[in-house]
Amino acid sequence: MASVFEYKEVVGISIESVEAAIQEGLTEVSADYQVAWFEAVSIRGRMVDEKTTEYQVTLKIGCRPK
Amino acid sequence: MASVFEYKEVVGISIESVEAAIQEGLTEVSADYQVAWFEAVSIRGRMVDEKTTEYQVTLKIGCRPK
Amino acid sequence: MASVFEYKEVVGISIESVEAAIQEGLTEVSADYQVAWFEAVSIRGRMVDEKTTEYQVTLKIGCRPK
Amino acid sequence: MASVFEYKEVVGISIESVEAAIQEGLTEVSADYQVAWFEAVSIRGRMVDEKTTEYQVTLKIGCRPK
Amino acid sequence: MASVFEYKEVVGISIESVEAAIQEGLTEVSADYQVAWFEAVSIRGRMVDEKTTEYQVTLKIGCRPK
Amino acid sequence: MASVFEYKEVVGISIESVEAAIQEGLTEVSADYQVAWFEAVSIRGRMVDEKTTEYQVTLKIGCRPK
Amino acid sequence: MASVFEYKEVVGISIESVEAAIQEGLTEVSADYQVAWFEAVSIRGRMVDEKTTEYQVTLKIGCRPK
Amino acid sequence: MASVFEYKEVVGISIESVEAAIQEGLTEVSADYQVAWFEAVSIRGRMVDEKTTEYQVTLKIGCRPK
Amino acid sequence: MASVFEYKEVVGISIESVEAAIQEGLTEVSADYQVAWFEAVSIRGRMVDEKTTEYQVTLKIGCRPK
Amino acid sequence: MASVFEYKEVVGISIESVEAAIQEGLTEVSADYQVAWFEAVSIRGRMVDEKTTEYQVTLKIGCRPK
Amino acid sequence: MASVFEYKEVVGISIESVEAAIQEGLTEVSADYQVAWFEAVSIRGRMVDEKTTEYQVTLKIGCRPK
Amino acid sequence: MASVFEYKEVVGISIESVEAAIQEGLTEVSADYQVAWFEAVSIRGRMVDEKTTEYQVTLKIGCRPK
Repeated sequence: MASVFEYKEVVGISIESVEAAIQEGLTEVSADYQVAWFEAVSIRGRMVDEKTTEYQVTLKIGCRPK
Repeated sequence: MASVFEYKEVVGISIESVEAAIQEGLTEVSADYQVAWFEAVSIRGRMVDEKTTEYQVTLKIGCRPK
Repeated sequence: MASVFEYKEVVGISIESVEAAIQEGLTEVSADYQVAWFEAVSIRGRMVDEKTTEYQVTLKIGCRPK
Repeated sequence: MASVFEYKEVVGISIESVEAAIQEGLTEVSADYQVAWFEAVSIRGRMVDEKTTEYQVTLKIGCRPK
Repeated sequence: MASVFEYKEVVGISIESVEAAIQEGLTEVSADYQVAWFEAVSIRGRMVDEKTTEYQVTLKIGCRPK
Repeated sequence: MASVFEYKEVVGISIESVEAAIQEGLTEVSADYQVAWFEAVSIRGRMVDEKTTEYQVTLKIGCRPK
Repeated sequence: MASVFEYKEVVGISIESVEAAIQEGLTEVSADYQVAWFEAVSIRGRMVDEKTTEYQVTLKIGCRPK
Repeated sequence: MASVFEYKEVVGISIESVEAAIQEGLTEVSADYQVAWFEAVSIRGRMVDEKTTEYQVTLKIGCRPK
Repeated sequence: MASVFEYKEVVGISIESVEAAIQEGLTEVSADYQVAWFEAVSIRGRMVDEKTTEYQVTLKIGCRPK
Repeated sequence: MASVFEYKEVVGISIESVEAAIQEGLTEVSADYQVAWFEAVSIRGRMVDEKTTEYQVTLKIGCRPK
Repeated sequence: MASVFEYKEVVGISIESVEAAIQEGLTEVSADYQVAWFEAVSIRGRMVDEKTTEYQVTLKIGCRPK
Repeated sequence: MASVFEYKEVVGISIESVEAAIQEGLTEVSADYQVAWFEAVSIRGRMVDEKTTEYQVTLKIGCRPK
């Protein structure tokens, strides 16, 4: 029975929404790891132009190697 | 004049969005309490499958008995 | 070369979504300042009625006078 | 021997003083619970008018059912 | 499908160990609630006598009514 | 409908009480802004002499231009 | 020129007010040290009886030996 | 002389004790790294059944490749 | 009636358990002071060898001179 | 007697040192304000090239209009 | 367009200065990763002898594989 | 084998650099104690004049009586 998880901390980025940025981060980490849970520890971003905002969501992801 | 509010702390869960998870938590508490304000104190979640993410938003809700 | 940024802290408000509330705050500050980055430091809100939630997102915005 | 306390978190409100707001919160909770200790975790408020300030003190109260 | 959990915050107390104090808190809450998870948010205590230490562990417990 | 508030952070100072120091800060900011709410984020001070203590209360004030 | 201060951390206690509890702490430390500044880092307390509240204010005091 | 350490963050899990959970995390990381020090940053868990509690201890581990 | 407590902050160390490390710290301080309460503010440590872990528990101890 | 200070929060930037970045921030604010004190609340930066690091120091500056 | 960054957390060590310790950490990570930004999250150290201080700076480094 | 360290918290002050301020604090405490490690918990200061900045670094120092 696996009894240890590790944390990966990444920043997912999207110009669509906070949820899309979270999804970017999860997709990246789930390529190599089995993702068990995550926490969004900060929501940052920048204005790309007047109508476009880039969301940068820092995720701590609890995972195990696949 | 009522001069005391109490805090309820709940976790609202949704596979749609952060906002839908917040709404789940507010709806639950507003069944028995008059909700005055809330704060989202953490955004957590898990991957249900490759395309579905479950959002778990912890809310501190300032309220009074109805 | 400009070597100092200042922080403005504002609360953007919207009944649509967290992202719309962030946009409100950014739009206000970008009228007078060149916005370089932001961080959403708290997500609060209140129930307007049973179906409507007001999101109040506090932003720290790194910027420079235009 | 009772070996568990629970926490109640409330906001006591008063236009007189921080201490009066604390007293409001303690009185409310002590109606139903035996209050063992408290901590004032935030002091907030608003201006009612130019001369009157409302103090809103959030209390975490360690208590047991009476 | 139940989509909301609530938090109960209690202090479990024991003169045996940190783990026994945690167990005290969990047992109390699990009488009325289905306990899903907990976090030990502080470990405090006092000296009962030279050889005996009382552990007071504050738990935030995620749970649902049974 | 105005949908953005800004934060002003000031230190109110008084030798009378914590409440008087809060009032100093609120009065200053309310000269130019409509004050909506405040939070006292730190209470500091110094001894002026053996019988006199100066209270320095840092306030974060949510406000809008008048 | 003295270029080092030390911190003393004490809990001042009073049944009168937060300010009186602060004064208790400052008086104790100023017996042996020259007090330069203080910060009130927590406000706790307990109910002595229905009408009496004991305030326990933790102070970090910047000081030098007299 | 090696002058850089890296941090690994893992969650050690055990149904025996907090110390056993810490040991699980250390053993895992020490397979590939020379462990220099650790900090237990959170103690979480869940009830497996009425008599069994699972401890989940998050560790930040300062280490170097072996 | 003594109305001031002071804080001592120490690190208790043991290769047995978190509780034994706490006891080390309390015993040291209780030689010169009457210990009223404590809080374990961090749990750190190091691997002495593959089977031995040293626990280093930082304690804030509320106390008065004996 | 002036009894209110305000906080300005800025980011000073320099490729020389942390101290030079602090000086940048202080110089900017002291053009329009009388600076009373500051706190460096974060030290961030980026690599400009292999040999050059840019330091970005966030300062909270207590000040008054000149 | 790459839309995910990862965080590496390291401790850079130097007996020269805080900046040199930061440089140590950045150099190590930039061997294998493209460093985008960093934050110095703690400054610790020890006295090597009466005249020599070792600085240990913990860095969170936002980066991408080269 | 000594198994307890105590913490001293001091503010080292220098007009030269952050490192010189740290050195001031360490030198003071090492007169009476064997210094094992330190952490710089805040960097504050003030402008002495246009060209001179005073750095005030708060240190938590782990030590034992000599």
